[in-house]
Amino acid sequence: MATRVAVAGASGYAGGEVLRLLLGHPEVEIGALTAGSNAGQPLGALQPHLLPLADRVLEPTTAEALAGHDAVFLALPHGQSAAVAAELGEETLVIDCGADFRLRDAAAWERFYGSPHAGTWPYGLPELPGARDALRGARRIAVPGCYPTAVSLALAPAYAAGLAEPEAVVVAASGTSGAGRALKPHLLGSEVMGSMSPYGVGGVHRHTPEMVQNLSAVAGEPVTVSFTPTLAPMPRGILATCTARARPGVTAAALRETYEKATAGEPFWRLLPAGRWPSTGAVLGSNAVQLQTALDEDAGRIVVIAAVDNLTKGTAGGAVQSMNLALGLPEELGLSAAGTAP
Amino acid sequence: MATRVAVAGASGYAGGEVLRLLLGHPEVEIGALTAGSNAGQPLGALQPHLLPLADRVLEPTTAEALAGHDAVFLALPHGQSAAVAAELGEETLVIDCGADFRLRDAAAWERFYGSPHAGTWPYGLPELPGARDALRGARRIAVPGCYPTAVSLALAPAYAAGLAEPEAVVVAASGTSGAGRALKPHLLGSEVMGSMSPYGVGGVHRHTPEMVQNLSAVAGEPVTVSFTPTLAPMPRGILATCTARARPGVTAAALRETYEKATAGEPFWRLLPAGRWPSTGAVLGSNAVQLQTALDEDAGRIVVIAAVDNLTKGTAGGAVQSMNLALGLPEELGLSAAGTAP
Amino acid sequence: MATRVAVAGASGYAGGEVLRLLLGHPEVEIGALTAGSNAGQPLGALQPHLLPLADRVLEPTTAEALAGHDAVFLALPHGQSAAVAAELGEETLVIDCGADFRLRDAAAWERFYGSPHAGTWPYGLPELPGARDALRGARRIAVPGCYPTAVSLALAPAYAAGLAEPEAVVVAASGTSGAGRALKPHLLGSEVMGSMSPYGVGGVHRHTPEMVQNLSAVAGEPVTVSFTPTLAPMPRGILATCTARARPGVTAAALRETYEKATAGEPFWRLLPAGRWPSTGAVLGSNAVQLQTALDEDAGRIVVIAAVDNLTKGTAGGAVQSMNLALGLPEELGLSAAGTAP
Amino acid sequence: MATRVAVAGASGYAGGEVLRLLLGHPEVEIGALTAGSNAGQPLGALQPHLLPLADRVLEPTTAEALAGHDAVFLALPHGQSAAVAAELGEETLVIDCGADFRLRDAAAWERFYGSPHAGTWPYGLPELPGARDALRGARRIAVPGCYPTAVSLALAPAYAAGLAEPEAVVVAASGTSGAGRALKPHLLGSEVMGSMSPYGVGGVHRHTPEMVQNLSAVAGEPVTVSFTPTLAPMPRGILATCTARARPGVTAAALRETYEKATAGEPFWRLLPAGRWPSTGAVLGSNAVQLQTALDEDAGRIVVIAAVDNLTKGTAGGAVQSMNLALGLPEELGLSAAGTAP
Repeated sequence: MATRVAVAGASGYAGGEVLRLLLGHPEVEIGALTAGSNAGQPLGALQPHLLPLADRVLEPTTAEALAGHDAVFLALPHGQSAAVAAELGEETLVIDCGADFRLRDAAAWERFYGSPHAGTWPYGLPELPGARDALRGARRIAVPGCYPTAVSLALAPAYAAGLAEPEAVVVAASGTSGAGRALKPHLLGSEVMGSMSPYGVGGVHRHTPEMVQNLSAVAGEPVTVSFTPTLAPMPRGILATCTARARPGVTAAALRETYEKATAGEPFWRLLPAGRWPSTGAVLGSNAVQLQTALDEDAGRIVVIAAVDNLTKGTAGGAVQSMNLALGLPEELGLSAAGTAP
Repeated sequence: MATRVAVAGASGYAGGEVLRLLLGHPEVEIGALTAGSNAGQPLGALQPHLLPLADRVLEPTTAEALAGHDAVFLALPHGQSAAVAAELGEETLVIDCGADFRLRDAAAWERFYGSPHAGTWPYGLPELPGARDALRGARRIAVPGCYPTAVSLALAPAYAAGLAEPEAVVVAASGTSGAGRALKPHLLGSEVMGSMSPYGVGGVHRHTPEMVQNLSAVAGEPVTVSFTPTLAPMPRGILATCTARARPGVTAAALRETYEKATAGEPFWRLLPAGRWPSTGAVLGSNAVQLQTALDEDAGRIVVIAAVDNLTKGTAGGAVQSMNLALGLPEELGLSAAGTAP
Repeated sequence: MATRVAVAGASGYAGGEVLRLLLGHPEVEIGALTAGSNAGQPLGALQPHLLPLADRVLEPTTAEALAGHDAVFLALPHGQSAAVAAELGEETLVIDCGADFRLRDAAAWERFYGSPHAGTWPYGLPELPGARDALRGARRIAVPGCYPTAVSLALAPAYAAGLAEPEAVVVAASGTSGAGRALKPHLLGSEVMGSMSPYGVGGVHRHTPEMVQNLSAVAGEPVTVSFTPTLAPMPRGILATCTARARPGVTAAALRETYEKATAGEPFWRLLPAGRWPSTGAVLGSNAVQLQTALDEDAGRIVVIAAVDNLTKGTAGGAVQSMNLALGLPEELGLSAAGTAP
Repeated sequence: MATRVAVAGASGYAGGEVLRLLLGHPEVEIGALTAGSNAGQPLGALQPHLLPLADRVLEPTTAEALAGHDAVFLALPHGQSAAVAAELGEETLVIDCGADFRLRDAAAWERFYGSPHAGTWPYGLPELPGARDALRGARRIAVPGCYPTAVSLALAPAYAAGLAEPEAVVVAASGTSGAGRALKPHLLGSEVMGSMSPYGVGGVHRHTPEMVQNLSAVAGEPVTVSFTPTLAPMPRGILATCTARARPGVTAAALRETYEKATAGEPFWRLLPAGRWPSTGAVLGSNAVQLQTALDEDAGRIVVIAAVDNLTKGTAGGAVQSMNLALGLPEELGLSAAGTAP
């Protein structure tokens, strides 16, 4: 019997991507679609690419609308998920695409988000050590942030293997959909096209503590992350350049071997053959994380590049992958490691 | 039992899109992948987005390599399909993504292509009158050109209903993938980004006689098409603006009603609700043709806008749709009317 | 002594482009900069590219602020220019980049703009017959719309020479800056990049009566224009594809010769050598209009392609060119026919 | 009397940008334009944006063609400048936009370029300590690489002031014009648009030793640079994110003050007001370097962001600025700190 799924926040980019994937998921029946200020409108007016759902009318996001589903995806503004989740029964799988339940450290949450900590749910990045087991059968899942997905999967093997000093430096470029659908002047096409710009510089981006949490956990010691996000003239994709000082004696071959072992057998977490580099174009719409490694001997640093689609593996695809694990379905169902290119 | 499918020309954009779709087709097993000068390379070096096939090595395009498949897609340079097809048995379904077998008029072929006419195969645009029946059980299929797909489905209903004078004026913008992977200076990213330019102006583009053929057939009289293609700064998509002088007495309501009837029940050929306009972004990677109509009363013309993905519905998706019909599979199998956006 | 110039509406795209050009104008001293809701802010916060003026603070748009200048550019929302102009003395050159004073036909104005007609000022398209003389010494100038600039200069020679039937069909692609800085969802970078879409289809775009006015004047008979604008994924530029049925006996050579004569000696209105086609990339930031012609003999139509930068020749550059004429300065001063590419 | 200037390599992107700037330079008369394989073609066929020079025919790059000019810009492939320069008299100002004479360390040159070291010329980055004096009256100038321009001006103040540890980590995004006009598959518009990708990862990019040279000189000790360049979907611009571990006691205020002092009075090297971040869109076509600084206290690193136009300040603009200094002209002549936006 099909799994009946509702999506709260269906008019935004994350909600739209969840729906795009669910449309291709063979075990899912799409139930209620809800929205905030867009409630009452047909989905086709807001997500014109989701043609098969164009006539579905958005309901207000209420417990009544979301009740009676096997799984509910929350793609809501930060701070709204806890209240909605509280009204859904414990037997309902609730998958929060927002940040509310990602951090374990309440102080870090409060410092970066400026509001009380709502709690911590199982973390939907199956590729991290132990995560897959925690997700199997889970009924609450915190979907990782898009940057932490890319950066954690880029650096976790190096830290798990003790190859790098605990001070990572990360610069990542993101497509504009990462900023959501908000009407802000700097997100206008006229401003964005042909231009790269940074934001959240100096350690203040909210995804920073999530990277610190993930990398410190695998390293077994506190890892700092100097993280600079930049906005790139493209709708989708994250290219993360992640570097850290190499521990003494690390070789390029050892580095590569570490990543081969870490990603062996993984359906979506993939080290490219030597000589090929990730690009965001190659992962568009796909659930893959493409990686490549290098050792800069002059500078004494390892460099790991990761490419993901911020909306797919970085949000909705990671969410569906975790849903599959939670529901006991094949992990890859409804997802593809192939992108749409050129 | 799965249909075993080979792709000749797997290193190009059309071949790559065929493979992307076949990867998601539940009844297909992907067999031989062949190429010309790229033979011997792993597919991953040329189509980095097709991660599940990355290690497959391209064979040279020979009859031996292509033998033993239920269906063979040809994505070859113009003029090469006839020889390859001749070596494949009549029981093999051969689907030519090239132009060689599209035109019925040998003189038009020779004028526009400068080579002898190879013949005419059933035309893979199921939405045209009679086409679906001709495709069922076919073993040779000529996939339409990308522009003729958009323009024919934009204007056929008006001509079939006698609403328009037989002199169409069409201006279409295409993404750069329509020009293929050839290394030409004007296709460099530095030249293309931020710039629109025309090409093939003045009735010389090779897709013109194909539009004339299709529209004249449905009109029951010769239709001329003034066709101007333009290159737009995007990788994919065609937006076709199609106009023709309205016959006396045509109203906006009658125009719309004609298109509602023509597209009723069609899985991919879709008239948008009044007030919404097609965009190429909404059909990226999808097999949909999105249409909208208008009547310009001051100028006395009907205007029909069509958006398609040139590589999907405009090439590979149309090809898979036709394959499904030829093999007796559900027409929509492995295809989606949903695009990947934003 | 330098001409002292004020700009009202300095925080928008048109105002910003006026300022960019004035910064390079050797006879101009930049005076007051005013704005509406952005008054009080430094220009650098809104126009970060205008570094030499970054610290200038925007004043509210009032008669006091604009008084005491030799010339005042108005880059205001439609309907606001008349009131501001009325308070400036008749000796002040007032150049309206908005639409208020472009149309001679009050009925057309009211039908397309929905407000009372404010009047008609000398029309700032010097290349049109008689326009240059009317601009010399003028103290009020209506700057043409961006699309009418491209389309009028594309088709005027054909109509002046009687080469074309009076029913033009025009499809134009514009960069997003043509829509201004308004915060509208469809102008977000995520929506615009990688996507082409139409708007104002069916003869309803406000620039249509302006094209009709210009072309009818040169043709000496009423000309209709079927005009379809489209939004292209680029910040700047208009590519206009303009066609009309050729009058009997017109040849490609005669067509070309007509354009050679019309543009001979013009500093910015330029017919390209045969075989080269205009592109918007080649006119970025330039005041040039690049043209090319073709005759489609099968369809019986002339085709003229024009490329302009919508903000430069299409707005601010045309305005500065007209200012130069009005003030008796060399027409090309502060302007360039060279674009910034790639 | 005007300075007579020749450009060797006028058909490439660097040569085209030199010409664009020279067209607006009030003291320059443009003389011979030469090319390699493009010799014999009119410039308009290759640089359609340089309309005022469209009919100028490219000569072969020979000593005869370049003789008799006051200044000669060389925009040639690496390794060709020495031979051409040797044939020009010592009184001729020769400005090499290539790499041949940038490095002082012959071993570094040979390691990164794989050819014998040609020598070292005065380095055309006037903003570096001592450089302006060395350029005044010079007759040979080595124009810096585009990335070293951005990175050196981003980090030099911090190293000069002793604020940072001598291990810089730099990730930079460049527009595609930085790769020149070579016909390479990965530079096709279809591949580039919508995609970010790295290249030259692991310390192998040829601009690395140039950054090391510049930063070590100002630091007074060897500085290592971990440099990762990435290709961004835009034609122009470099956004460089430059970080280094802060020395103990460094504060955000001290960092900012250091940069205020370093850039005070500089015409093109500019620190933005606090709270505003550089973007490449804001420097398009301009000679400005826009900077902003931050201190990441958690990670213990200073972060400096620089935006330049790779073709203007990063190549041709820097070259013209140096030419002005060498010839005793005002340093800013023919250059602007204002960009073309949006």
